[in-house]
Amino acid sequence: MHMLSSWTYPIFYVLAIIAILFSLINFEYLKRILIGRPMRTKELNAKHNKLLWFIALPILSADLYSSVAYGPEAGVTELIGLGAEVKWLILPITAATVILLGILITSYIMGILAYPNGGGGYTIAKENFKKPWMSLIAASALLIDYVLTVAVSVSAGIQAIVSAFPEVAAYQISLSVLCVVFILMVNLRGVSESADIFAWPNFLFIVCMLALIITGFFDEFQHGFVQSTTPPFGTLPANLTLLVVLKAFSSACSALTGIETISNAVPIFRNPPLKGAIKAYITMGLLTGVTLLGFAYHLYVKGIPVDPNHTMLSQLASIYFGQGIFYQMITWSTFIILIIAANSIFTGFPQLMALVAADRFLPRSLIIRGDRLGYSNGMIVLAALSILLIVAFHARTNALIPLFAIGVFAAFTVAQAGLTRRWLKVRGSYWQVKALINAVGAIISALVCVVFAVTKFKDGAWVVLVALPLIVFAAIAVRKHYDQVAEELRIDVKTMHPQKHRVLSIVLVAGIHQVVLNSISFAKSINDEVMALHIGYDDESIEKMKMKWEEWGSPCPLITLKSEYRSLLQPLSRFMKMVEVAEGGKPDHIHLIIAQFIPKRWWQYALHNQTSLLIRTLFLKNKDVVITTVPYHLHR
Amino acid sequence: MHMLSSWTYPIFYVLAIIAILFSLINFEYLKRILIGRPMRTKELNAKHNKLLWFIALPILSADLYSSVAYGPEAGVTELIGLGAEVKWLILPITAATVILLGILITSYIMGILAYPNGGGGYTIAKENFKKPWMSLIAASALLIDYVLTVAVSVSAGIQAIVSAFPEVAAYQISLSVLCVVFILMVNLRGVSESADIFAWPNFLFIVCMLALIITGFFDEFQHGFVQSTTPPFGTLPANLTLLVVLKAFSSACSALTGIETISNAVPIFRNPPLKGAIKAYITMGLLTGVTLLGFAYHLYVKGIPVDPNHTMLSQLASIYFGQGIFYQMITWSTFIILIIAANSIFTGFPQLMALVAADRFLPRSLIIRGDRLGYSNGMIVLAALSILLIVAFHARTNALIPLFAIGVFAAFTVAQAGLTRRWLKVRGSYWQVKALINAVGAIISALVCVVFAVTKFKDGAWVVLVALPLIVFAAIAVRKHYDQVAEELRIDVKTMHPQKHRVLSIVLVAGIHQVVLNSISFAKSINDEVMALHIGYDDESIEKMKMKWEEWGSPCPLITLKSEYRSLLQPLSRFMKMVEVAEGGKPDHIHLIIAQFIPKRWWQYALHNQTSLLIRTLFLKNKDVVITTVPYHLHR
Repeated sequence: MHMLSSWTYPIFYVLAIIAILFSLINFEYLKRILIGRPMRTKELNAKHNKLLWFIALPILSADLYSSVAYGPEAGVTELIGLGAEVKWLILPITAATVILLGILITSYIMGILAYPNGGGGYTIAKENFKKPWMSLIAASALLIDYVLTVAVSVSAGIQAIVSAFPEVAAYQISLSVLCVVFILMVNLRGVSESADIFAWPNFLFIVCMLALIITGFFDEFQHGFVQSTTPPFGTLPANLTLLVVLKAFSSACSALTGIETISNAVPIFRNPPLKGAIKAYITMGLLTGVTLLGFAYHLYVKGIPVDPNHTMLSQLASIYFGQGIFYQMITWSTFIILIIAANSIFTGFPQLMALVAADRFLPRSLIIRGDRLGYSNGMIVLAALSILLIVAFHARTNALIPLFAIGVFAAFTVAQAGLTRRWLKVRGSYWQVKALINAVGAIISALVCVVFAVTKFKDGAWVVLVALPLIVFAAIAVRKHYDQVAEELRIDVKTMHPQKHRVLSIVLVAGIHQVVLNSISFAKSINDEVMALHIGYDDESIEKMKMKWEEWGSPCPLITLKSEYRSLLQPLSRFMKMVEVAEGGKPDHIHLIIAQFIPKRWWQYALHNQTSLLIRTLFLKNKDVVITTVPYHLHR
Repeated sequence: MHMLSSWTYPIFYVLAIIAILFSLINFEYLKRILIGRPMRTKELNAKHNKLLWFIALPILSADLYSSVAYGPEAGVTELIGLGAEVKWLILPITAATVILLGILITSYIMGILAYPNGGGGYTIAKENFKKPWMSLIAASALLIDYVLTVAVSVSAGIQAIVSAFPEVAAYQISLSVLCVVFILMVNLRGVSESADIFAWPNFLFIVCMLALIITGFFDEFQHGFVQSTTPPFGTLPANLTLLVVLKAFSSACSALTGIETISNAVPIFRNPPLKGAIKAYITMGLLTGVTLLGFAYHLYVKGIPVDPNHTMLSQLASIYFGQGIFYQMITWSTFIILIIAANSIFTGFPQLMALVAADRFLPRSLIIRGDRLGYSNGMIVLAALSILLIVAFHARTNALIPLFAIGVFAAFTVAQAGLTRRWLKVRGSYWQVKALINAVGAIISALVCVVFAVTKFKDGAWVVLVALPLIVFAAIAVRKHYDQVAEELRIDVKTMHPQKHRVLSIVLVAGIHQVVLNSISFAKSINDEVMALHIGYDDESIEKMKMKWEEWGSPCPLITLKSEYRSLLQPLSRFMKMVEVAEGGKPDHIHLIIAQFIPKRWWQYALHNQTSLLIRTLFLKNKDVVITTVPYHLHR
């Protein structure tokens, strides 16, 4: 073992260092290889294909439907402390989840009736509440949940693989991080044009799940609906508390994230879009509900236990199909749909960020489209945050679940409340019914949200409850800053015009050579008031410089300073203060001219002091000094 | 477990992020806390205390003497594949090591007779060989071995701790890295003034080792010199090859690194320094020889096996003393002397680098003394490289040993050859004897070096054999670059004087507001030939800008460009090319003026585009353009 390691480790590290150096030197080239040629802004407007509703359905349902792979398991995990007796609780808990699903889908159908051009929680809240608080709560809740969706989906996807191939279990975290990086790269390239190829793997997963459920019923017809593995039904052990049941219910509700996807995408349905979207919503709800109930029922009949290294879906599939081709199909289609679910967030998250940034609540750079026309900055933020979560929680789905779904239900609450207000104000046909549905949706979402926050507080929900208000406050601060800057920068074009001022140019000189000749030439070309400043480390070198300067014919006055601490910054600051109180008055602009060596080859940078960079950074930040860099390109 | 993790992980990460942010924001403050106030250059000349030879001895012997903790074990490790029968080989191998030690110490005493003011391999080779190749081989061989000494000593120190406290075994790598960081910090603060406090722990370790050896002999007087645990002596199994024996010998020779320390430090001995240094050399040689032989003999008698989680020293000590106070003393003094050995390298390595850099073979920045007067840059390089090694080799001493000692013996060879040449040239009293001793030293060092390189090639020695010539070539390239630059920059002060040139100033404008007003004012103050350049993303915004500019009274000509790829760089490059071929001729200097927002608070930086930084970096590098940054400090 140690023979092998001492032989291979260094190679690995040398390769890594070469890769890093290469990317530093030739970043632009690497970027072209990885994300492709830059695209013109007008390429953005190329028409999107409109999709038939049953093609759009599998594309838009990845986020919601994929969560059946971890939702029921997350619920059952909360109950393991209570023993096998309470395994039957999976049935009422799943039933409650499905009822909630129905209520939410009905509310969301009301939502798209109100905003047929697509309007997420942020837009609905913005239009129906005067103060920005509500819409920012919706936005930050959604942003938090988007990050969690990526972390949870990718972790669950890798867990599906690990269940089938236990030998990769040790690489669970690295594989999850790699997946996120891969999805980021694909999205930086831009994938929107090929969204419909995603329909097929999603469709395959839906078919696999339905086949699994049907196989289950065949099995039960043959071997009975109560089998030797089936746990007892209806027992209530003494240590079962309402809190535990609510915790299990809230974990199971992690299966409900992603309902909003269709409502944001109404315009992509082929005409009439609204009708297609409603059909898709109903079908998606029915499919998800049937799958959840059927899956939970079979889990109960087979008495599947929770095993962190073997997902319940994988266990059930291997009971029915062994380790054969159908089992592999379920494993891989689970993995793929979860990755696609994470991938879809890479469109939603940056779009929402850009929407909020357009209202000046987030940094402006989030609105800028990258080389491939996606909101690259938002994508990078999403990838970074979800990798942080994956690493922090060791890529364990069940550790992430407690943070999950609070955001979704908070956003649901705000959106439904906004819709209720809208129906009350706008009215229209059947407005009373619509308002009632949305009001019920808002109240139930709010209740669920509170239950989640309370029951899961200690298990991680506190993270969300701390982060959410922080994001809202930060957004308000950002907006305030932008407003103040706009106010500060405004000028009256009638009265305020550029004026000529007195400028004192100071050239930093290290000796007498080509570089100094070049920068003093530049200084004298643009200004008559030029001074040379030399900072030496000892008296001897300073005297030598003075003599050489006179020998050169003193092209401009030379000032020398001694640096006792071997740093240029302190004597330079001292000198600036001297200039400000000098006779002849303070100049309007102090103008520091610094020469900078530009070597021909990258490695030569290490051979020349980069003091100019340091001076520039620190002086620009702290002083009102104009700084000019005169490059000197080395020929050899 | 998952409850705990989901609760504690986020706290840990939040704290880490806060710490990183804090250090970014307040780097200067953090630096003051960690390394103390900056010191004046003249504080460097405060007199060093001269030391009596028996005080200097334990200080200077840390590097050599500490390696008894891992040298014999490294030798035996090579033999484990051959079974218990060959355990007796530890005795002849250690004896050979001690003979080599004697030869080297004799040669080094000749060395200090020639260079009583201290002269390492680099200085000796530089003075006695015309071409720089030889001295650079010596220097780079020593630099490589210094890095390895830090990595090996720290790893071995932590292994001593792990042997006594197996519960920290999982943190071996992290603890080793932390140790290096700690030593770096201590050295950045500067510790030279207190070097003599290091005498005591080293002295303690020597006493402990001698006590261990004496205890061993008592034990053997009581229980017999051949005990039940003693392996047979003199058996030669069929699978024993010369190669394996040589490998074991070369690994055992890792105990011989650090012999050069005294020769570099002759001037610190109290008068007469030379006599003190020779006394110290002889005493150090005797102590190390006795310890090596005695330790190896007891290891043989007790038949101590190799155990990666329990060092042989720790095993032997626990046989004699159990787990009591004396065992703890051996453990901790082993740890401390190894850390001190690593610490001493943090003086030697940067000094050697500065010496080589003063001859312009390494980057100039290595000569600059840091805030605390040490060569900080060299220290940081050393820490970074040794951490890389520790991580790459998982802090396992036995994996690092094969890379070790080649450098030392290469440097020995060059130095001894140089001394031989010197005696032949300078002569003086007994020059024939001295020349003979050094010639023998050179030949034996060269032989050992070749044996190491051949036998350990595959186990890691190749890394050194690749790195060494690379460093030499790099050094030659660096020197060539500096010479060429000096040549290129030289000017004739009689004939070449600064000239006034034609400058065209171009101001980048994003709109019409205070910032633009400010930078156009500056441009008009220093130059008459000023142009404003606006780069827009679409025709509409460009038209709007043109209208507003006219409304403002066109303070200077405005040029507008459209960016199809949402990047400022491409249109700007295009414009530069246009200027160069414009009518009126190419200006002597193109002068780009860019305004830069300077927010009041650090977080506000994220809210403003840092385009100016990007433009500056890319344009300075690729074009002959003077770039001026006009800061605009936001008031709120």
